[in-house]
Amino acid sequence: MIDLRSDTLTQPTKEMRDAIYSATVGDDVYGEDPTINKLEKLAAEITGKEAALFVTSGTQGNQLAVLAQCSPGDEIIVESESHIFFYEGAAISALAGVQPRVIAGARGEMDPALVRQAIRSDDIHFPDTSLICLENTHNRSGGSVVSLENMKSIYDVAKDAAIPVHIDGARLFNAVVATNKDVKDFTQYCDSVQICLSKGLGSPVGSILAGDQKFIQKARKWRKRLGGGMRQAGFLAASGIISLTKMVDRLAEDHDKAQKLAEAIEDIKGLTLVNHPQTNIVIVNIEKTDQKNEAFLEKLKQEGVLAVSFGEGQIRLTTHYDVSDVDINHAISALRRVVG
Amino acid sequence: MIDLRSDTLTQPTKEMRDAIYSATVGDDVYGEDPTINKLEKLAAEITGKEAALFVTSGTQGNQLAVLAQCSPGDEIIVESESHIFFYEGAAISALAGVQPRVIAGARGEMDPALVRQAIRSDDIHFPDTSLICLENTHNRSGGSVVSLENMKSIYDVAKDAAIPVHIDGARLFNAVVATNKDVKDFTQYCDSVQICLSKGLGSPVGSILAGDQKFIQKARKWRKRLGGGMRQAGFLAASGIISLTKMVDRLAEDHDKAQKLAEAIEDIKGLTLVNHPQTNIVIVNIEKTDQKNEAFLEKLKQEGVLAVSFGEGQIRLTTHYDVSDVDINHAISALRRVVG
Amino acid sequence: MIDLRSDTLTQPTKEMRDAIYSATVGDDVYGEDPTINKLEKLAAEITGKEAALFVTSGTQGNQLAVLAQCSPGDEIIVESESHIFFYEGAAISALAGVQPRVIAGARGEMDPALVRQAIRSDDIHFPDTSLICLENTHNRSGGSVVSLENMKSIYDVAKDAAIPVHIDGARLFNAVVATNKDVKDFTQYCDSVQICLSKGLGSPVGSILAGDQKFIQKARKWRKRLGGGMRQAGFLAASGIISLTKMVDRLAEDHDKAQKLAEAIEDIKGLTLVNHPQTNIVIVNIEKTDQKNEAFLEKLKQEGVLAVSFGEGQIRLTTHYDVSDVDINHAISALRRVVG
Amino acid sequence: MIDLRSDTLTQPTKEMRDAIYSATVGDDVYGEDPTINKLEKLAAEITGKEAALFVTSGTQGNQLAVLAQCSPGDEIIVESESHIFFYEGAAISALAGVQPRVIAGARGEMDPALVRQAIRSDDIHFPDTSLICLENTHNRSGGSVVSLENMKSIYDVAKDAAIPVHIDGARLFNAVVATNKDVKDFTQYCDSVQICLSKGLGSPVGSILAGDQKFIQKARKWRKRLGGGMRQAGFLAASGIISLTKMVDRLAEDHDKAQKLAEAIEDIKGLTLVNHPQTNIVIVNIEKTDQKNEAFLEKLKQEGVLAVSFGEGQIRLTTHYDVSDVDINHAISALRRVVG
Repeated sequence: MIDLRSDTLTQPTKEMRDAIYSATVGDDVYGEDPTINKLEKLAAEITGKEAALFVTSGTQGNQLAVLAQCSPGDEIIVESESHIFFYEGAAISALAGVQPRVIAGARGEMDPALVRQAIRSDDIHFPDTSLICLENTHNRSGGSVVSLENMKSIYDVAKDAAIPVHIDGARLFNAVVATNKDVKDFTQYCDSVQICLSKGLGSPVGSILAGDQKFIQKARKWRKRLGGGMRQAGFLAASGIISLTKMVDRLAEDHDKAQKLAEAIEDIKGLTLVNHPQTNIVIVNIEKTDQKNEAFLEKLKQEGVLAVSFGEGQIRLTTHYDVSDVDINHAISALRRVVG
Repeated sequence: MIDLRSDTLTQPTKEMRDAIYSATVGDDVYGEDPTINKLEKLAAEITGKEAALFVTSGTQGNQLAVLAQCSPGDEIIVESESHIFFYEGAAISALAGVQPRVIAGARGEMDPALVRQAIRSDDIHFPDTSLICLENTHNRSGGSVVSLENMKSIYDVAKDAAIPVHIDGARLFNAVVATNKDVKDFTQYCDSVQICLSKGLGSPVGSILAGDQKFIQKARKWRKRLGGGMRQAGFLAASGIISLTKMVDRLAEDHDKAQKLAEAIEDIKGLTLVNHPQTNIVIVNIEKTDQKNEAFLEKLKQEGVLAVSFGEGQIRLTTHYDVSDVDINHAISALRRVVG
Repeated sequence: MIDLRSDTLTQPTKEMRDAIYSATVGDDVYGEDPTINKLEKLAAEITGKEAALFVTSGTQGNQLAVLAQCSPGDEIIVESESHIFFYEGAAISALAGVQPRVIAGARGEMDPALVRQAIRSDDIHFPDTSLICLENTHNRSGGSVVSLENMKSIYDVAKDAAIPVHIDGARLFNAVVATNKDVKDFTQYCDSVQICLSKGLGSPVGSILAGDQKFIQKARKWRKRLGGGMRQAGFLAASGIISLTKMVDRLAEDHDKAQKLAEAIEDIKGLTLVNHPQTNIVIVNIEKTDQKNEAFLEKLKQEGVLAVSFGEGQIRLTTHYDVSDVDINHAISALRRVVG
Repeated sequence: MIDLRSDTLTQPTKEMRDAIYSATVGDDVYGEDPTINKLEKLAAEITGKEAALFVTSGTQGNQLAVLAQCSPGDEIIVESESHIFFYEGAAISALAGVQPRVIAGARGEMDPALVRQAIRSDDIHFPDTSLICLENTHNRSGGSVVSLENMKSIYDVAKDAAIPVHIDGARLFNAVVATNKDVKDFTQYCDSVQICLSKGLGSPVGSILAGDQKFIQKARKWRKRLGGGMRQAGFLAASGIISLTKMVDRLAEDHDKAQKLAEAIEDIKGLTLVNHPQTNIVIVNIEKTDQKNEAFLEKLKQEGVLAVSFGEGQIRLTTHYDVSDVDINHAISALRRVVG
């Protein structure tokens, strides 16, 4: 079965299993897990921030950023289809008591002028705007890269208004590799960033959250409240270190495969690319096939290929470490047969 | 000074003061204030609901509806410029822990198809959609009436999905009078409704919240937590009863004055109506005068007329009980002089 | 019917009704209600604080103090039977997200050494202690006065730890009058204070919350979120001003009547005073009468006297403005007959 | 260094590392991690509940129980020094908006009569009591076993009032082994239970939460909001399965060592046992040594033994898998030398 449902499905590499097996661990609640400490130091360096924190998921990293930066009754500006708004169970409101103010982006990029307009003025009827969140790459736009220009413009608007910026960089390294830049080129335009070690980077579990010392200290306390404080977490960190040091460059292969897949799809009658993929996500409109998502995906499964529904008339295919060139060829053939 | 800033600024009538003076009161926390009890019974009858609750403001009524109907981590569907989202300090998220899902309306009317789309399916990443809120009349659209047709369509969508509907009817009687309908024609399409006794109905303080018994019981307990449980509140209810029984029909006069004002404004070069008023609110675009809001309003004040800023390049003028026909003529002249 | 259930049941005086009738009012959300402004200025002066805010109830004042001083995940120290913990529907946790740390007091006085011990040290497992609350007089201890010595000691502990102190002074003037001190003698030992204008001071509705400018500004914004922002609230303030200026000294009469009632009760076989009253509340143990609370109170009602249950085997009688000397005599006779 | 600070410090066994290395994993957010599924099935069976959920920590399990069982503004009954109240950063109030009602236990056992009394009656001033929490073994009482009799009595009180019971069983297996009972003998008296796989059971990370299907479904969704949803979490579950199947019986050794340590301490002049240990925790009063905690612990460290402060004048020593008989002898000698 060729599994293109998500890059979260990757199996850890042999090297990761070896590192996990031989990890030196301690009690991280006491700050004594050397592998966690090493990962957090590395993550801070790579992102150019003062400190970093290992968390169990991207959602947890995003939520901690909001909890550490905001007070109940605040408003935060988020893209209208961003993960933090769309896929996190309204946790920003449930846990941090903040209200999202959404701005519809173009392939994930919010217009800086609209961001500026959305910042609340001082009025007893208004919440305070206390955080602006970006997502890069932007999942629901098909793994689109939010450009450095857009990030800089929004960061400038934010700094003018003394509002911190958080990047949901669950797949930030995909943007880094796609643009041939350094991760610090992106993280210079934020106060905090969350990056997943799973997904394209292949680790079984975990994300890192980076920011300044005070921010990380607050986030660490909130992580304890959420039950994210773990004991010998070094097992997970051992793999995370490999993700950050050895798995980044190979994301280019995922992008190439997504590209190849996309080009083939363009030639399949009945299928339309929703966006030309910039990274590892291909979103396809299947409406012209006159098939419902469910039926289409079931047929595709019969052909040995898994994908996911992505809104009415659309499906998503994601490339990752466990998908080979042969798999891509097979997937293309399968799609052709399903369209019929 | 002719005060067109808001209909909340009305002074209570002589009759109201008399009623307040001679009100029979008791301790409402004990359920023993006869005037409160009378008002709540009357409000339930008028709205066609099982029960009603006196609250200190429209905001409190709206918040209680959300608190009584939702759980933290839920999502509620609201119009993107509705009061409950725009003007209540993110209280829905701060107090009830719910996330707003906004839909941009056309003059306050949300497209039922978009409402249907916005209802979340069952998925571990998604909040549950637990309330749909309408605002009628819709303040930021210039007191627009949300039509019965639109309300019915949205209510049908809601019922299909077993989701309750709340009306922020702060100015619902303006819609009732403007359409020459009964209030029950509107409230049949909701599970709960909040209606202000102040604003056009002239009372100094208070709103009513109506719904079924169980809903009102939950709202009453939450009102206590918010500190909205009052002792001899009958003084306020005495006026509220007059609002509901004697002040409704005269809203037509406010609408006529707004109409007259709007027609005159259409002829003033440099001023544009943002919306042709359906009730008592006139929103005017002043951009062509090349004057900033602040300067424009200051000049208007020098001419003896008060209005408020309503977003960049726009001002709002609201008619109400304390505004006479002569005042309207004066306001028109003042606007002409300010435009210059 | 002689109503000793609570001092919240008082009917406003003729003077209050007159003041209400002729109140000059404006829109307080715009800061334009002159009577509200006058009351708030007066309340600030009387309590020796920078600023004050009119709120609809004691509960609302207490909740605003917590919301303005604390962050979610904090802990606040409160007396184990204090109103804020016992009678406010867990609102401190529901609204402000704070956890109460209770200390059992002796007649409402917490041991300062226990307060010191209860303050949390810096540890990732611990909440931060961010507020200490006193209640004076202390309702559930029978209107006991918390002494200035106790208040000072706790305030010193608080200041050592840089933690603010809030007084729930719903009946603070009863303490003031009972000790023949000035209200500032008490409020010097707190950062914020809430005082009810109803209860012994006779107004129909309302409390004041006082503190420094920044605190009141935050409280004002939270009041809006709770729906406590009112329009022509001056009607209520007009009465409140009379409460603060003309009703304080007469509390001594309520205390005398409670004293008289208590002394008589001491002589009634089967009844025991739980506490000798220091102010206007008398708590009586009825266990030796072998009557259940409900039956006892029902018989008392048959005799024309109302009181309330106050825990198993205990009832509470409260004196107030509407209770005359004759009423007290009648109540004593009634109690005698009920005991039998 | 002999580390008696906590049983959370244990290094995983060789068998655990092997199991981790060779774990079959999948994406648990998709429900496709076979090792997680196996662990959850096993945990449900062992505890006699319908379903179970793997969580990252005991704190997360406890918080999910509260989030799944309660609504904001509820009150929950907890022991006054229980972990959920004392050590979880006020998260029950911050996340679930509930207020703790504490009852001081005797070695962790709450008096059922006091529990009954603490349940709130129906009154608009009162929160609803929606959960009763027990902790077994009880950490701050020195790993005391809450007896089955006490558990049954409290459970009966709870069932009478239709209130669910949650056990914080972070160390429930220590109680099981100490009493020579089956875990179901304990879990029959609860609706939900949380058990740590780390601590005495040696796994690096994780706890299980068990209860009925509906409860686990709600907990699973809240786990996602807290960011506890992990991808290839089977690595952690692989070790957890060994904890549940092979590490339980050996807890008896930890208890024997604690016993041996305690007996020796009884004979050391200046040291007093706070409680005679029933399981693996020894709390020692050092006040008679006239040494401060910090100095005492530092000297002990110089002697090669680590312990933790446990309130003024008290220290805690915990036995676990990595502590041998020789280590205990050494620790006893070290304590003798430190006392001097």
